[in-house]
Amino acid sequence: MLFSSLTVLAQNTPDKHILEVLDAQVRAWNQGDILAFMSGYLDSDSTRFVSAKGVTAGYQRVLARYLSAYPTKEKMGELSFGDLNVRLLSSELAIVIGQWNLKRRDTDGGNTSGYFTLIFQKTVNGWKIIHDHTS
Amino acid sequence: MLFSSLTVLAQNTPDKHILEVLDAQVRAWNQGDILAFMSGYLDSDSTRFVSAKGVTAGYQRVLARYLSAYPTKEKMGELSFGDLNVRLLSSELAIVIGQWNLKRRDTDGGNTSGYFTLIFQKTVNGWKIIHDHTS
Repeated sequence: MLFSSLTVLAQNTPDKHILEVLDAQVRAWNQGDILAFMSGYLDSDSTRFVSAKGVTAGYQRVLARYLSAYPTKEKMGELSFGDLNVRLLSSELAIVIGQWNLKRRDTDGGNTSGYFTLIFQKTVNGWKIIHDHTS
Repeated sequence: MLFSSLTVLAQNTPDKHILEVLDAQVRAWNQGDILAFMSGYLDSDSTRFVSAKGVTAGYQRVLARYLSAYPTKEKMGELSFGDLNVRLLSSELAIVIGQWNLKRRDTDGGNTSGYFTLIFQKTVNGWKIIHDHTS
């Protein structure tokens, strides 16, 4: 029984829930569904997306940025994440580092990759990204 | 008395302390003192520096990276920060977004700039950067 309880606990760690959010995002992206991909982010004016180009403030603007930068399924390409590392800061805050890879035909922008830092917050709707720095 | 107390409180906000750390970092950088600049980071193996090139893990490696990338005061150039925004996540965690600018002669690499996300944690030694994503 103790072993079973520990197994259940392990299966319900924040890490697992956070990785499930990222897994769902990858699946949504690869189906060309940016709205479903965006459900990984907190729908809030305080949500931020930062890149070398600047800061995008608020869920709606982050959504608009993705729709503008990736207007077709072909330009979205095939997304995969690697080297994921979850660091829990508290029972409701976590930092996730990872590598992102986009596989695309040259005519759609070609392959591209980089690293991201995501800050996740536990909400009543599960773990959500409140801050994304992608480069 | 109430007014005075509130004034004292306002002067001791986390925002103010965090901005002081960043101000001290800029001054240290512009004096060519990378070790003093690094005192803004938490001296811990868990400290992370992330860029488009990858992840640097641990205070010592972050220090080594700065020393390697900026071997002379001339290559360090003149640093300034802009558009700083502090978001307090809890009484001891904060996200800071900002723009960084490096003014350098062309022969030392030329001017360069970008954005950063810093995660600050309040420690017994004050607010320290535990995670830096710079792009």
